[in-house]
Amino acid sequence: MSKTDWRIGVAGLGTVGGGLLEFLLERPGFSPTGGQAIVTGISARTRARPRPFDISNIPWFDDPVALARSPENDIFVELIGGFEGPAKDAVEAALLAGKPVVTANKALLAHHGAELARLAEAKGVPLLFEAAVMGGVPAVKIMREAMVGDDILSVAGILNGTCNYILTEMEATGRAFADVLADAQRLGYAEADPTTDVGGFDAAHKITLLAALAFGCAPNFAATEVEGIDQIDLMDIRLAKDLGYRVKLVASAERSEDGVLVRVHPSLAPMAHPLAQAGGALNALFIEGQRIGRIFVQGPGAGARPTAAAVAADIADVMTRAVRPVFQKPASELKPFTPVDPSKSMGRAYLRFMVKDEPGVIAAVSETLAEAGVSIESFLQKPVENADGVPIVLTTHAVAESVLMAAIERIANLSSVLDRPRLLRIARI
Amino acid sequence: MSKTDWRIGVAGLGTVGGGLLEFLLERPGFSPTGGQAIVTGISARTRARPRPFDISNIPWFDDPVALARSPENDIFVELIGGFEGPAKDAVEAALLAGKPVVTANKALLAHHGAELARLAEAKGVPLLFEAAVMGGVPAVKIMREAMVGDDILSVAGILNGTCNYILTEMEATGRAFADVLADAQRLGYAEADPTTDVGGFDAAHKITLLAALAFGCAPNFAATEVEGIDQIDLMDIRLAKDLGYRVKLVASAERSEDGVLVRVHPSLAPMAHPLAQAGGALNALFIEGQRIGRIFVQGPGAGARPTAAAVAADIADVMTRAVRPVFQKPASELKPFTPVDPSKSMGRAYLRFMVKDEPGVIAAVSETLAEAGVSIESFLQKPVENADGVPIVLTTHAVAESVLMAAIERIANLSSVLDRPRLLRIARI
Repeated sequence: MSKTDWRIGVAGLGTVGGGLLEFLLERPGFSPTGGQAIVTGISARTRARPRPFDISNIPWFDDPVALARSPENDIFVELIGGFEGPAKDAVEAALLAGKPVVTANKALLAHHGAELARLAEAKGVPLLFEAAVMGGVPAVKIMREAMVGDDILSVAGILNGTCNYILTEMEATGRAFADVLADAQRLGYAEADPTTDVGGFDAAHKITLLAALAFGCAPNFAATEVEGIDQIDLMDIRLAKDLGYRVKLVASAERSEDGVLVRVHPSLAPMAHPLAQAGGALNALFIEGQRIGRIFVQGPGAGARPTAAAVAADIADVMTRAVRPVFQKPASELKPFTPVDPSKSMGRAYLRFMVKDEPGVIAAVSETLAEAGVSIESFLQKPVENADGVPIVLTTHAVAESVLMAAIERIANLSSVLDRPRLLRIARI
Repeated sequence: MSKTDWRIGVAGLGTVGGGLLEFLLERPGFSPTGGQAIVTGISARTRARPRPFDISNIPWFDDPVALARSPENDIFVELIGGFEGPAKDAVEAALLAGKPVVTANKALLAHHGAELARLAEAKGVPLLFEAAVMGGVPAVKIMREAMVGDDILSVAGILNGTCNYILTEMEATGRAFADVLADAQRLGYAEADPTTDVGGFDAAHKITLLAALAFGCAPNFAATEVEGIDQIDLMDIRLAKDLGYRVKLVASAERSEDGVLVRVHPSLAPMAHPLAQAGGALNALFIEGQRIGRIFVQGPGAGARPTAAAVAADIADVMTRAVRPVFQKPASELKPFTPVDPSKSMGRAYLRFMVKDEPGVIAAVSETLAEAGVSIESFLQKPVENADGVPIVLTTHAVAESVLMAAIERIANLSSVLDRPRLLRIARI
């Protein structure tokens, strides 16, 4: 085993970058190969800012690209974030300089993963991103390394801790989305601009990367369906519960003969299912392989310490000098991502209609569904306080998305239906 | 990336070896580094035996040691089993020849891991054993690689699928241990000689290895406390359920200032806990790290295909030429394993006493416990059909094991107590 020391450049000293610096300064000898990890350069937006560790002796770079290019470090760690701008420029510069890169930047790789993988592989250096997905849970390592002898059929899970926290709180406290979000922002669980999280985009970046690892396709964020939790009504959380389900933001990727379906939707999971049981800021993921069967992993999906530990594990992997393809296959062999037409996708659904409390409404709704070819699995009508009208809630048997959408249109046009019908998918898990 | 082909020697063609051969012959190009995996030698007890794959063109070795030494293969895969004899001889021979070794042999490593790790590291070759623990679930990789930047505090889980299947069936069908075991043997879920599984030894081998990975101690099977499920009475499964628990064979390793406590016991897990929810032949594990927090993994712990996929993943790791310590630290730095005196260990317990149905019994039992310093958490007396006497069941608050044992002795000597008290620990999870 070589006992080389490794010089590390770290760009970005936010939550994860700060956690990493703290770790590297406290434990430079963590390497499995016996050498030291020495921080030889840092870059962040602001130099003079109170930090719980001393950076006065570490060379400072105003420009992360200059840090990435500097011959004074052997590994470049990108923790700036953002899919364009300095993060992308710095990662490219490091790879062009023939330097291994470790990043936690899911947005960057979801948008530019294939091109960066080509660059890394042309230079023969690793580009690792364990911390980009599920924080401290090694989902990337499991999919890239442990399932190398398998054909992955699907992955599905909870990949955004902020959304999971908000949904868990809404159910537990009976408060509305906006109210719980404001609290989460005060507590630091949600960003000042929460769009990336609550809009589903963060989970979509992550499932885009997992799909590339699972199916050997180039990451293609544009082909990922994204729906967030910002439209989730407390009423649906309660009614779903009455039907034995819990509402979760589920990200999933499945392959079929027609291609790959990658999506993020608020979805219903049966109450006893491990995904329904993963509460608070937990992340959880099912990986289904043809040989291995179903593996389930769960753990803290965010936070300075778990995420920094994942970055450290990637640095350790670089130290072993192992080089693998960035995604499942070498970048030159990644298949183009062929999205399945979602309208052909089959699935079960939860529908809620607010209706006038008058005779014949149930008949009208159920006849319309029958005519449209939607088969009802369960049906619930229940008065709700402080609501206009009465909710009719039902779950369907598996139905093609296009048929479902057509049925919803018809029902929306019934005179007794007061509001836009609400659709939540039942997770295929 | 080098596109070297790798020549693989496989000793042992049982369930896992057969699964591996089938995989390698079907998919020799699975390597992440682009080369082919070519089976250049095999060895097993019987050559002429019907197999679902063709071995007629593969060089045959009657002696696995000769296969291990043969210059015709680059990687030696040991799937013979057993902690002495040909498995050990062959692994040693391969390492002495400077050849990477992949094995699924938990018994061998639990007994001789430190010495084999020293040999492998002296020769600078990997000795990998992912398939030894949890079959297709990459517990070893997670602990060795993903948690390299963390301090692991404890691991606990269900590591033997046969025991978990038997306990699940006992609860579901209300049949006795011997009855369910006989069925499991007929179905091929349990061996003809089931001692290794139902005696807890297989789980003990596995938790011994996980403890070495977690705490940087030399594996020390002799220091692992082992209790199997062969004495589990259906009555306790039912009474535990009445108290909100499920009986599981839990393997755990914890460190404290005094040392390391590694044990396998039938234990009670709260019904809603993920370990209680892992039914049938599933394996499940919690890993608690100081930085990462609690990670949970679950999946199929055995079976030809999942286990062979784990062996294939190890072969792929060898192909990347990464070399890490076999356990958490280099073999020369592994700490001696200092077992905690279990009598000092604190924990909660479930106790059952069969008593005569007469006045004053509850008072006698509870007074004796109080005098011994055992504090009762819950108490249940319930008539049971077809039993001699009436069971008194209770759970205790945390108590030192030595205090508990002394209390049990006292109660066993009460005239109204008919039988040896039954103790099950409540899992610290």
